Amino acid sequence: MRIAPLLTAAIVLFSARSAVYAQTFIVANEARIQSRIKALGLIGDTSLGIRKRVAYSTGDIAARKYITGLMQSVGLSVRVDAGGNIIGSRKGKNASLPPILLGSHTDAVPNGGIYDGDLGVIGAIECIELLNENHLVTDHPLEVVDFVDEEGGLTGSEVMIGGLTAARLGAITNGGKTIRQGIADLGGDPDQLDKAVRRKGDIEAYLELHIEQGGNLERENRDIGIVEGIVGLDSWTIEVTGTTNHAGTTPMPGRKDALVIASKLVVLVNEIALRIPGRQVATVGQINVFPGASNVIPGRAVMSLDVRDLSRQKLDSVFGLIRQTADSLAAATGTTINFIRKTAADPAMAEKKIRSLITLSADEAKLSTLSLPSGAGHDAQDMARIAPMGMIFVPSKGGISHTPEEYTSPQDMAHGATVLFHTLMKLDKN
Amino acid sequence: MRIAPLLTAAIVLFSARSAVYAQTFIVANEARIQSRIKALGLIGDTSLGIRKRVAYSTGDIAARKYITGLMQSVGLSVRVDAGGNIIGSRKGKNASLPPILLGSHTDAVPNGGIYDGDLGVIGAIECIELLNENHLVTDHPLEVVDFVDEEGGLTGSEVMIGGLTAARLGAITNGGKTIRQGIADLGGDPDQLDKAVRRKGDIEAYLELHIEQGGNLERENRDIGIVEGIVGLDSWTIEVTGTTNHAGTTPMPGRKDALVIASKLVVLVNEIALRIPGRQVATVGQINVFPGASNVIPGRAVMSLDVRDLSRQKLDSVFGLIRQTADSLAAATGTTINFIRKTAADPAMAEKKIRSLITLSADEAKLSTLSLPSGAGHDAQDMARIAPMGMIFVPSKGGISHTPEEYTSPQDMAHGATVLFHTLMKLDKN
Repeated sequence: MRIAPLLTAAIVLFSARSAVYAQTFIVANEARIQSRIKALGLIGDTSLGIRKRVAYSTGDIAARKYITGLMQSVGLSVRVDAGGNIIGSRKGKNASLPPILLGSHTDAVPNGGIYDGDLGVIGAIECIELLNENHLVTDHPLEVVDFVDEEGGLTGSEVMIGGLTAARLGAITNGGKTIRQGIADLGGDPDQLDKAVRRKGDIEAYLELHIEQGGNLERENRDIGIVEGIVGLDSWTIEVTGTTNHAGTTPMPGRKDALVIASKLVVLVNEIALRIPGRQVATVGQINVFPGASNVIPGRAVMSLDVRDLSRQKLDSVFGLIRQTADSLAAATGTTINFIRKTAADPAMAEKKIRSLITLSADEAKLSTLSLPSGAGHDAQDMARIAPMGMIFVPSKGGISHTPEEYTSPQDMAHGATVLFHTLMKLDKN
Repeated sequence: MRIAPLLTAAIVLFSARSAVYAQTFIVANEARIQSRIKALGLIGDTSLGIRKRVAYSTGDIAARKYITGLMQSVGLSVRVDAGGNIIGSRKGKNASLPPILLGSHTDAVPNGGIYDGDLGVIGAIECIELLNENHLVTDHPLEVVDFVDEEGGLTGSEVMIGGLTAARLGAITNGGKTIRQGIADLGGDPDQLDKAVRRKGDIEAYLELHIEQGGNLERENRDIGIVEGIVGLDSWTIEVTGTTNHAGTTPMPGRKDALVIASKLVVLVNEIALRIPGRQVATVGQINVFPGASNVIPGRAVMSLDVRDLSRQKLDSVFGLIRQTADSLAAATGTTINFIRKTAADPAMAEKKIRSLITLSADEAKLSTLSLPSGAGHDAQDMARIAPMGMIFVPSKGGISHTPEEYTSPQDMAHGATVLFHTLMKLDKN
């Protein structure tokens, strides 16, 4: 009966672990997350009057060094891929399984906050801490990723899915460097980006924890946002052409004031987006009039249009209505209104199964949830092209982001990391 | 009976002149005016990419030299006053009478046309030619004035009425010089401007011929515009404050989009100016939104407001309505709308008697007329503060001005000079 003791030991061992897992529900360490977010938040080019750190800056490089150190301190095997993305790996029980990726980014917009992106990387490292503390090994290998230059256009995740165009390499970024130079400065190899590319099947799943950057969770008083998907974004430049004339000598009737027509269109765009049932948004964030003198009737107005929704069909129907309204307006006023398309990004849906695992994890943690779309873009939208994707939101105070006033409480951050951890564990066993 | 032949001679002489005046109605020389307008129009800093000549530039100085030469060629006694204004004088029969002034300006906006201002000076010189050719001497002394820097803010006429502020002397003009330096470069004396000042009673009347710079005469198919007055101009900066937010993550309901509110106000300003009976105009010619990114809901919009009318009461009531509308809009949307006044210029009326003399002169010349306000500013509005003022308009093709496309036909220019001449003659005898 030599087998029995061994078997018993195994059962005891298994039971002991299950007991820990079941009886003392594993939760993230609030103080640890907060101290790391604060430490990371102090790194940046404040000398330039920039609150945080834009991609490829000395601040960005310093922050990435800090993240590399953290990854190493929790036992991850760290490498930098050709795109400059930092990847920390932890072995799983079954080396033949594709890895589960957890991640986000640590670069920031100029004058940004200290939570956007950072929480996703610190939260992923927290999951590794929890695995270590509880002596757990997942079946799948795990990878924690700190993507490059998310704010400049998802550069690192674009590289990873093989989507970064050659033209983008020469683009000048917020910090003044080209993306090519920036990637090289982060330790990547812009001439061998193919080496960083992952394909469908290479990754088991991608999970990202992020602050909401909106006010829905706070308004609804919920702890956890379960992201349904990342909205598609269609953008245009709209050009209204009327007739420039003297503001003093031109009678009101018969004027073809491009700003008056553009203003009517701005109001109608807003009304259309408000009127249609659903959660679509439409925004005019830029407008310029020409010649732009107080005593001259504008002959030309140029403005932006940004339309977002989770459904491609809805995006098309909203734009169709706006276009139709603009055409009627132009015909009625004898002006012309042209639309020049800038971008057309399809929505990226979170996987249904992962969403239900997030919900289950939040329920177990006794946290309230809200399903919602992400109106902002994230690395997750790229990763969804090659792997099942799930995204967890935590509340942003006042719904504000991309400003130093951005704030998420330590408790909310810990809640997010706890749900991320349990979602990872369920996904691993699934 | 030695007296008789002498008396007869005098009567014959007088009759002969009256006969010329009555039988062959004096008309301006179309070819002469056209050739001088063209010659003057060739003078300018085209090397700078500027179509014409801004005040105080080398082109302006060259043009003033040309005008000085023309004045001398028609027998005027030419001086430059302390403000740099060129004044050509012709004696009248009665030296104790105050002079009648005829004039305009020869400086131009950057990239302007060749008729705005120039026609008034060339037309005044044409009147002197007609007096010379017809051996006529007026009772009143006459003065032809080429004012300084009209386009920069009526500088020369402001000097003449004692209205130029000390602060303006240091202002930088379109050509890069200060007004102080510019006046000195034109032969004026910026430290003795008081010597150029004329007071009420110093001038019998001021007459100005000008292109309409609007489309009323062309639209109504009339030859001569009888200016009722120069409109008052009230201008403001309007600041709309809402809430900046992410264009993707902020739901449509509850947004405080400063551009949407500003756009509603632009449309309402236009509607108010269109709806009220009268010829008031209201224009928003400038708008800027902040932060001004396509993916950010504008939190702030700043725009100009320019309101013009011949009546101070009307100006106040139009603004009152706009203000009331803005206040309601702000209250309804939870935004703030502030008005910062920039200028408040009262209307300047043409003298009723002079207007009737212009009408009479046009009737005699078998030219059709239209009474209308001047929506643009002119030196005449300053002169109206110290003397009876009359202004004659001729058609502008397409109503356009302040551009190289500005055009008035030689025939229309000659019509204007003919009416200017006969108005002068009637005024002189009045």
